[in-house]
Amino acid sequence: MMTSTDLDALMTDLGQRARKAARILALTPSAAKDKALRAAAQAIRIDTKLILAANAKDMEAGEAKGLSKAMLDRLMLNPARVEAMAKGLEDIARLPDPVGRSLAEWTRPNGMSIARIAVPLGVIGIIYESRPNVTADAAALCLKSGNATILRGGSESFHSSQAILTALKGGFTACGLPADAVQMVPTTDRAAVGVMLRLSNYIDVIVPRGGKSLVERVVAESRIPLFQHLEGICHTYVDGSADLEMAKTIVLNAKMRRTGICGATETLLVDRACAGTHLAPLVAMLIDAGCEVRGDAVAQAADARVIPASDADWSTEYLDAIISVGVVDGVGAAVEHINTHGSHHTEAIVAEDSQVAETFLNGCDSAIVLWNASTQFADGGEFGMGAEIGISTGKMHARGPVGVEQLCTFKYVVKGNGQVRPG
Amino acid sequence: MMTSTDLDALMTDLGQRARKAARILALTPSAAKDKALRAAAQAIRIDTKLILAANAKDMEAGEAKGLSKAMLDRLMLNPARVEAMAKGLEDIARLPDPVGRSLAEWTRPNGMSIARIAVPLGVIGIIYESRPNVTADAAALCLKSGNATILRGGSESFHSSQAILTALKGGFTACGLPADAVQMVPTTDRAAVGVMLRLSNYIDVIVPRGGKSLVERVVAESRIPLFQHLEGICHTYVDGSADLEMAKTIVLNAKMRRTGICGATETLLVDRACAGTHLAPLVAMLIDAGCEVRGDAVAQAADARVIPASDADWSTEYLDAIISVGVVDGVGAAVEHINTHGSHHTEAIVAEDSQVAETFLNGCDSAIVLWNASTQFADGGEFGMGAEIGISTGKMHARGPVGVEQLCTFKYVVKGNGQVRPG
Repeated sequence: MMTSTDLDALMTDLGQRARKAARILALTPSAAKDKALRAAAQAIRIDTKLILAANAKDMEAGEAKGLSKAMLDRLMLNPARVEAMAKGLEDIARLPDPVGRSLAEWTRPNGMSIARIAVPLGVIGIIYESRPNVTADAAALCLKSGNATILRGGSESFHSSQAILTALKGGFTACGLPADAVQMVPTTDRAAVGVMLRLSNYIDVIVPRGGKSLVERVVAESRIPLFQHLEGICHTYVDGSADLEMAKTIVLNAKMRRTGICGATETLLVDRACAGTHLAPLVAMLIDAGCEVRGDAVAQAADARVIPASDADWSTEYLDAIISVGVVDGVGAAVEHINTHGSHHTEAIVAEDSQVAETFLNGCDSAIVLWNASTQFADGGEFGMGAEIGISTGKMHARGPVGVEQLCTFKYVVKGNGQVRPG
Repeated sequence: MMTSTDLDALMTDLGQRARKAARILALTPSAAKDKALRAAAQAIRIDTKLILAANAKDMEAGEAKGLSKAMLDRLMLNPARVEAMAKGLEDIARLPDPVGRSLAEWTRPNGMSIARIAVPLGVIGIIYESRPNVTADAAALCLKSGNATILRGGSESFHSSQAILTALKGGFTACGLPADAVQMVPTTDRAAVGVMLRLSNYIDVIVPRGGKSLVERVVAESRIPLFQHLEGICHTYVDGSADLEMAKTIVLNAKMRRTGICGATETLLVDRACAGTHLAPLVAMLIDAGCEVRGDAVAQAADARVIPASDADWSTEYLDAIISVGVVDGVGAAVEHINTHGSHHTEAIVAEDSQVAETFLNGCDSAIVLWNASTQFADGGEFGMGAEIGISTGKMHARGPVGVEQLCTFKYVVKGNGQVRPG
């Protein structure tokens, strides 16, 4: 354990280095950034053995510590996963440069031209848990968007992350980028996170990537703006006008394609108008596919295998093969339910009636709303935005997928020929 | 003083009412919002006498309390200022509706269409000090952008703000808008601000409008994202390539047109390359215009009336007829000085050399950068954005002028015909 004075000095030094690197990265041309990303990919490939050896250390410690099977799987690297990391960097290199885009341009009556130009945010702090690949993904997305990164990985993945960082830094500096373009907090001391969250002079935005307790801690302590993703309590509403076959296809995919992702549907709402025809087949399909169904009284009546839902079920992110199913009185009640119990992430309606669909799309106060498509599309890649650093459930700056464009801010560039303000 | 339990209950009630109103406002058509704004303008005109009587009470208390002349002037209303408030509401009614704009649209290979649509932020909390007109301006900008507002005015302007609020509410409800579209914290208890800053379930963004100590308190305590404007330490840099006459015109306007606004230049930097020809005339002009000049050694040598600048002068927002003047070694040193000592608000360069200008515009990490124009243009109205709720010096969401478009967030609206995610 470091003293708090030492920790403050260490973190301030990290912050100052990052700020300095950020000023250089902001002015680095696209080609230089892309070359550095490809060099980092190669460095990761070359370092595969070192990375796997470091990961073996983390895995051993994790097993000794009694980490769950799911956590160990997230922690584990193998040659295929290392190669996927390298390929991920090359994919990011191929994205268009988000920096320097003109977002709007206009000319004032006095002849001044004004342009809103995308520029990097500056320094981005990433606080994450066991997945070591976040080290490469997050640093690469930040670099592509001209930002410096300060990474704070989980203690479980410390050695793996350090090995990945070494490869990244090697690739970046070989191409002339500053060594401090990406840095990692060099201690697993939990107090370092607290210090990091108060470094508002040096860090422009914090991205917490991890479970609910990590995010809650960051939200409570941070003095720095966040890209926050608390949870994904996503809904699919089957309207009375829905085609049953389409509803079945969408609901099955939305719930069961992958149950552990944030865009998985956690609650199915069925319009009372079609409950008689649609509810039983939907419920039976889910149960037959291996999903536990927790339902209201109507859902329970529709299938004997349905378990009674408790109040808490309507606000639970299961991330598992479990779904809550309820019957509502039309689209208005569905919207009301979603705005009350949801997490403002992603909601879908299945309906043939376009007016009902509009009511749903306008009424749900969520980052993503879909009509006749699966909630599992809630993903930057599926949106065509390239890789993402996460899905934001906040409303400020970025909402929904946070890709390289969302890692930028903008400035106003005004050009005149001597104009002064009258009056 | 209320007990903290009472205060929590009171503020939670306010928040819940605001959230409910926000859901209605988000779906209210443009014409209905604009009609309500015009009705509120008329109500303010009709209530002029009541508003002035309430203001007289505040002025009397303010004088008894020994408020400064400047504060009393900010607090004071007269018939012309009341009429300006009413006209301000009508101006806002005439702005285009920012809600529902399509910010981007594309189609995926699987046929799904995706649109990024502007929607209101939700509930906006405004914490302000003595200017009672903020009550009308802020509430109107929020309403225009479909948001509900919770106002927390200064205790000095309490009666004036209440009278203005009554008129606004009268206008809004007469047009069928919810009474809770705009609410005011009904107590001057300072603890209410602390409670408000933790109401993250009900308030989406906080706008502090006031002096540095108010903003610092809000930054330190808020659990809610902010549109933050700490200070405007703005610079004008006169490059070696600058035309002296243009430099004089711009510098005089940038410093002296109005010294109390955040876009006023506080530091003049002169390129050493032209110090011999440009520095003395610029300094003499400022002093002759009644400005106190605090300079470095070179500036002191240029004019005997220059006072030595202390270290603190380079990071001071004077908001007065005072300027710090220093000589720097070219555009690189100017950018370095500005990024180190400035507040990331607004900076101008006077130069004929376009490459030097590009270096400056790209290098300054500020919300607004100008080439051959006065820093006093840093204003939403001057940018053609209509009225503004403030100038943000933060980088997240809104940077620079915060107008009705910046009071919106967006959602992704996805339309399909049964698409599910493969794999």
